[in-house]
Amino acid sequence: MDEQAAPRRGRPGYDQATVLRRAIELFNQKGYDGTSIGDLASELGLSKSAIYHHVPSKEHLLQQALDEALGALTEALDRIEAASGLTATERLRTAVRTSVVVLVEHLPAVTLLLRVHGNSAAEQDALARRRALDDRLAAMVRAAAADGELRDDIAPDLLSRLLFGMVNSLVEWVRPGHDESAEHLADALAALAFEGLLR
Amino acid sequence: MDEQAAPRRGRPGYDQATVLRRAIELFNQKGYDGTSIGDLASELGLSKSAIYHHVPSKEHLLQQALDEALGALTEALDRIEAASGLTATERLRTAVRTSVVVLVEHLPAVTLLLRVHGNSAAEQDALARRRALDDRLAAMVRAAAADGELRDDIAPDLLSRLLFGMVNSLVEWVRPGHDESAEHLADALAALAFEGLLR
Repeated sequence: MDEQAAPRRGRPGYDQATVLRRAIELFNQKGYDGTSIGDLASELGLSKSAIYHHVPSKEHLLQQALDEALGALTEALDRIEAASGLTATERLRTAVRTSVVVLVEHLPAVTLLLRVHGNSAAEQDALARRRALDDRLAAMVRAAAADGELRDDIAPDLLSRLLFGMVNSLVEWVRPGHDESAEHLADALAALAFEGLLR
Repeated sequence: MDEQAAPRRGRPGYDQATVLRRAIELFNQKGYDGTSIGDLASELGLSKSAIYHHVPSKEHLLQQALDEALGALTEALDRIEAASGLTATERLRTAVRTSVVVLVEHLPAVTLLLRVHGNSAAEQDALARRRALDDRLAAMVRAAAADGELRDDIAPDLLSRLLFGMVNSLVEWVRPGHDESAEHLADALAALAFEGLLR
């Protein structure tokens, strides 16, 4: 990551992390395509020329945001796949819980990732990396099914889409600083998915 | 509906239904805010002045699309609430299944509804009507919980958000003419939600 090795570009009051956070908020509000560097400058109270002191380009900010979301999800899956002593079903349950926790802890970046359309090279790249993660999650569902622990009246790939569709739908209503803790949400979603809502 | 009483505005080759369908597709592809009447004219191979022969305004098309989605969902809930001889839990299961079927059968219009931001009066109105439907669905979950039939370790309002979040997430991957029939999807989603994915 070149930008991490380079000297900090931020002026006092706006470090890189703050600029990125405000940019992600704007992208989520107005859409990435609908947000200009000028919009971000206004949001930060900077002139359009001053903003380029902070950020090389809009696409650079998008790339950093998508890297944050994809990096957090990838690391979480790496850890779970490396864990020993888990059955395939325990591994899947851990993956579901952890996906919820990562989503809540990186809510703005994951929201942006899930809304990416693929209109640029950075977005196409993010979509490909997201599909690779979805494939790894689907493989975990198939492994649990192969162990005979999942219901066999629904194809594993459909189970996987429904299950992680429910996880991803959290971005539609969970808000930063919401009342539910990430762990509580993760427990509730995993319980509903694995045991169902009937008593 | 004035436009239904008025003489048809469509020219041969483009009836109102076709223009609306193509407009909804464009809105879903490019975003409503990102689509101009000029874009729709190009899509239909019409000049920008000819398009106004077909549609009074972009907002009018949005209104018709949102009315289609909200109307279908509202009628479905009205029928379920009026049905006799169902327990609260059977009513909820029917509402879940029916929501899936309506979503698949009106996929483009429901997709547009679920992506509305509230940037105009028509969108604000649609969001209010959508919230009213969500409230009716949440009331069905509370009624089933009050009958003691649902797990009591998750608050009914959280169950409701997770459950209908899973339903709504179908718009992210189901495509018109997809392999799964609407009924098969509805059965699978209801089975997962009610009995869970464990065998």
